[in-house]
Amino acid sequence: MKIAVDAMGGDNAPQAVIEGCIAALDDMEADIVLVGKEDVVREELKKYEGMYDEERIQIVHAEEVIENEDSPVKAVRTKKNSSLVMAVEMVRDGSANAVLSAGNTGALMTAALLRLGRIKGIERPAIVSAFPKLGRKGEFVLLVDTGANVDCTASHLLGFAHMGSIYRQHAFGTEEPKIGLINIGTEETKGTAMLKEAFGLLKGSGLNFIGNVEGRDIPRTEADVLVCDGFTGNIVLKLTEGTAWNVFKQIKDKLTEDFQAKLGALLLKKKLYSLKEEFDYSNYGGAPILGVKGLVFKMHGSSSANAVRQALLKASEVCKRDVIGEIEAKMGRYTEHGAE
Amino acid sequence: MKIAVDAMGGDNAPQAVIEGCIAALDDMEADIVLVGKEDVVREELKKYEGMYDEERIQIVHAEEVIENEDSPVKAVRTKKNSSLVMAVEMVRDGSANAVLSAGNTGALMTAALLRLGRIKGIERPAIVSAFPKLGRKGEFVLLVDTGANVDCTASHLLGFAHMGSIYRQHAFGTEEPKIGLINIGTEETKGTAMLKEAFGLLKGSGLNFIGNVEGRDIPRTEADVLVCDGFTGNIVLKLTEGTAWNVFKQIKDKLTEDFQAKLGALLLKKKLYSLKEEFDYSNYGGAPILGVKGLVFKMHGSSSANAVRQALLKASEVCKRDVIGEIEAKMGRYTEHGAE
Repeated sequence: MKIAVDAMGGDNAPQAVIEGCIAALDDMEADIVLVGKEDVVREELKKYEGMYDEERIQIVHAEEVIENEDSPVKAVRTKKNSSLVMAVEMVRDGSANAVLSAGNTGALMTAALLRLGRIKGIERPAIVSAFPKLGRKGEFVLLVDTGANVDCTASHLLGFAHMGSIYRQHAFGTEEPKIGLINIGTEETKGTAMLKEAFGLLKGSGLNFIGNVEGRDIPRTEADVLVCDGFTGNIVLKLTEGTAWNVFKQIKDKLTEDFQAKLGALLLKKKLYSLKEEFDYSNYGGAPILGVKGLVFKMHGSSSANAVRQALLKASEVCKRDVIGEIEAKMGRYTEHGAE
Repeated sequence: MKIAVDAMGGDNAPQAVIEGCIAALDDMEADIVLVGKEDVVREELKKYEGMYDEERIQIVHAEEVIENEDSPVKAVRTKKNSSLVMAVEMVRDGSANAVLSAGNTGALMTAALLRLGRIKGIERPAIVSAFPKLGRKGEFVLLVDTGANVDCTASHLLGFAHMGSIYRQHAFGTEEPKIGLINIGTEETKGTAMLKEAFGLLKGSGLNFIGNVEGRDIPRTEADVLVCDGFTGNIVLKLTEGTAWNVFKQIKDKLTEDFQAKLGALLLKKKLYSLKEEFDYSNYGGAPILGVKGLVFKMHGSSSANAVRQALLKASEVCKRDVIGEIEAKMGRYTEHGAE
């Protein structure tokens, strides 16, 4: 089992990416293939000489790098020797079981679509992001889609629900995952015409659909998977992140304003730290792009070494299960029989 | 100057509504007309006998009440003698300068549209909600629309921007309000086709447009007014409220877990309280429904007496300024000359 890692993708690449690989290696089954500029990667790996099993990390040279500013489609077409494209191709060619990149999201999406192809029955691949629930330690919800498709139809959302459900079950062991639909009210009649139609499709889908979930209830929803268009999902993900981050920053500022506050903060240090931990998105691994014929994980552009490590551990676990095959089988059945 | 208050609207009506009126009266210029079941209102007012200037609170009897479960359009058509409809009609008839209700939002919207009519040049009225900025004490942003229109065109958003700008200036004294467009990226090319078009319209609008604002940046945006469709606005408003509420709840739970934490919390009591205060939405008044020919303020269904008081103080201030006239003049000019 091997995971291809785009060594050059992300704001902190290659340092954080490689540090994350080294930190993950002992705790994961899969071996790693670092795809990137060979000399740069070798130089970086030197730091860890003797600290890891060199047989388990292979290097594949890639001459080019896709930058964040590059136009996705154009970059994938012209930078054929980029680390991102070559890493994705390793999955297509069967030389890796999964690929992981913190690089240009649009380019990763495009490469996944063009190089791996779409699973039959899936109209649109989607990005699935994990989202810690507030005040429910260790619990989290998967959000589908968080940015791949800004305009969606009801049937796209149905596909997202199926893929989210399968991924939740196979990657996290949740039986009959509860599926919620993000909407502006709990009643079936709320929202846009598209959402009303999606509600009907989900109700008849055979999935464990629990109904609409309002913005207010997202932070501690009962759902295991929340479905929405990629525009809404992106806003929800980033807004929660932004709000939580700002609340913590403000608490920190308050707690260092004067002596009494500092003393109080000292007594609460552990508690406040554990609170911050609960919000850490990176604990749930990378965000898979589901719907293509291969396992592709997107990491946050600013991923730390620890985030890379977590993403690798999860990817290695997921590789052992046949998520792609499950989606293919499910969507095949679905396409044959229609939405009962 | 008079403000018509729907005494029967809201989860805590009439108690919280009337308590809020009494608490506001001394600090506001406008007098109050309580519209509702006369015996119920009189009974409630008895509690405050001798504590307020009885000449400044008038009662208008309304036999019916529109419930939250009522279908908006049907309720406005059939419950002609309801407190909500009659309160709105007082504005139409010139017997009140503004109306305020914590009742059924859809019904208030419908009554405003049917009884007051739309301002010429405004395609869609919108709900404007204030939103405290995180870590910027006392600063806030106005969000337009937060739920009146789930599906929007680019030109609807342009109208929202104009109305939001005028309201911000007249109700809060901000000169040349900075207008932001909620989107999934800062670049002009991001988002749906509708948002790309809206970006262009806003750029050429003569408004102080500062560009796209991402989910992550909403909590402490530079913008004074953020524009979006009513679906997105509703999700953003409620998600922020939900996230902030849950973070505070969790802090509270942590701080009472054991003795050391309790001691620390005691030292930080003031700081943490001031933090919570900064998040209090009700400090910025009710949410005006702009675009109709009259001042209509919607309050949260669960409004406390303090929220009602704040909404009344703001409404009384806004009554003195000709917000409706300004919107009429602006949109008239706009309709004549088009978007330069």
